[in-house]
Amino acid sequence: MSTLGLDLGGTKIAAAVVADGRILARGRVDTPQTGFDDVLEALVAAARPLLADHHEVSAVGIGCPGPLDFVRGRVRFAPNIAGLEDAPLVEALQARLALPVVLENDANAAGYAEHRYGAARDLETSVYVTLSTGIGGGLFVGDKVLRGANGLAGEIGHMVLLPGGPSGGDGHTGTWESIAAGRAMARDASYVFSRSMATEELFDLARGGDRRALVIVRNAARFTGIGLANMVKVVDPHGFVLGGGVATGGDFYIDLVRAAVAEALDGYPGVIVRVAELGADAGVIGAAAVAEVDAAG
Amino acid sequence: MSTLGLDLGGTKIAAAVVADGRILARGRVDTPQTGFDDVLEALVAAARPLLADHHEVSAVGIGCPGPLDFVRGRVRFAPNIAGLEDAPLVEALQARLALPVVLENDANAAGYAEHRYGAARDLETSVYVTLSTGIGGGLFVGDKVLRGANGLAGEIGHMVLLPGGPSGGDGHTGTWESIAAGRAMARDASYVFSRSMATEELFDLARGGDRRALVIVRNAARFTGIGLANMVKVVDPHGFVLGGGVATGGDFYIDLVRAAVAEALDGYPGVIVRVAELGADAGVIGAAAVAEVDAAG
Repeated sequence: MSTLGLDLGGTKIAAAVVADGRILARGRVDTPQTGFDDVLEALVAAARPLLADHHEVSAVGIGCPGPLDFVRGRVRFAPNIAGLEDAPLVEALQARLALPVVLENDANAAGYAEHRYGAARDLETSVYVTLSTGIGGGLFVGDKVLRGANGLAGEIGHMVLLPGGPSGGDGHTGTWESIAAGRAMARDASYVFSRSMATEELFDLARGGDRRALVIVRNAARFTGIGLANMVKVVDPHGFVLGGGVATGGDFYIDLVRAAVAEALDGYPGVIVRVAELGADAGVIGAAAVAEVDAAG
Repeated sequence: MSTLGLDLGGTKIAAAVVADGRILARGRVDTPQTGFDDVLEALVAAARPLLADHHEVSAVGIGCPGPLDFVRGRVRFAPNIAGLEDAPLVEALQARLALPVVLENDANAAGYAEHRYGAARDLETSVYVTLSTGIGGGLFVGDKVLRGANGLAGEIGHMVLLPGGPSGGDGHTGTWESIAAGRAMARDASYVFSRSMATEELFDLARGGDRRALVIVRNAARFTGIGLANMVKVVDPHGFVLGGGVATGGDFYIDLVRAAVAEALDGYPGVIVRVAELGADAGVIGAAAVAEVDAAG
């Protein structure tokens, strides 16, 4: 079965016709910042040429930044796309494309692609973790995305791991994200080195033996180890897939994270920790796959 | 469909014939501490009279203290029942009763009973939390028990919530259980008051306005709030059911926990927190229900 995947980002909309996790055709348009009507037109412009060539497409999946209102088919907050917030995205797109449209969180979509067709394709249950500017994720059981009662499942970066710790983006202190995300490491680096520093440079310094850089990076890895180990104690997945720029930036940090997970799990069985395989295509492949499963019932 | 539930505890074995969550007949024998053969005889002695009167029973579920080896049908550690550890429990019991036998963790069994027939019977997904000497739990999605890759799902009391905090029973520091379980509160009380004190007395003192008692109890409730909120951010269940002696000991502590959950979830949708309803029967009802679902495929 072929489905169409759309990945709605702050700057680009990626589109692809996908069958069994393979991309048959793809398209890409810029994301307008001029209101919902224009966003809708851009989505239609990305989809139409592909649908014209692929009449067999039976459903459309769209991955969006969250949090989402799955019941009403809307994006709850969309700080990076003007006019998208609370607009009738699913309803309007269904009307324009005359196909069922399934909404999914972008992290869930990417994670689902890795679960079904990427790094976790052999694992019955997996947790996808985006280590990026922030920390997010998704849980997958068999061919299901576990969304939770309010679509909050997978908001894992907001777990509190150190009450009283640094301020987190969700208004709490000591969240995993507030300690270990890319933005948190950049904050610590700018404090320690008195200048702004990207995580790439911080990793380079740490790899080169700079003690202050290494302390920052090791602390982040340590808390990522605690975050993953805590999820073992809650859902005990068959494995984790780490995606996002911080995770895919090289072996140096991943090796530190693997060591931290092993330390945090001391006394428990080890757990599989892999790096994402599908790269930038994960978003469209996952959106299409979610639509496929949803269409199949 | 009727099934037989067995609840194998450190001092008693409870047995019941159960249909649709209702107990049709029950039995009870002491748990021998004289080796596996005697435990097996006691289980058979508890089951046989019930099976003789209820030929319609199609399967047997047995709830045991964990951790369990579900694949081999054995109990991995059994500090409270002599000879049980790594004995062929499922295999031997199936041979003796000539019925399929399904093994389940006792916390999962009690939680499953609450999920299907008790406090969470109207909730699609629920997390059961035993607040007792220790802290354990179980996750339920639809009619499924989420066991995890290694049977560790629901080992929620071992989540680390305060790295560097008190020593926990799993060899880590700062676990939820090490801060907030009944045993942890008793430890804090004996330190503060220089004598041993049960949680009931501690709660009485706190309820009466004793500031030192209140600090201990509030701290435990606070971390239970963080633990529950962290699970919202991972699995986002429709609700929680709190069981175990600490939870069912009265409204005083539960009110503190509910306030702590609300504080820890500030900015997120609220979550249902209920107290277990089925009392001591939850173990046999849940064991029977797990066997029923397993037998139904």
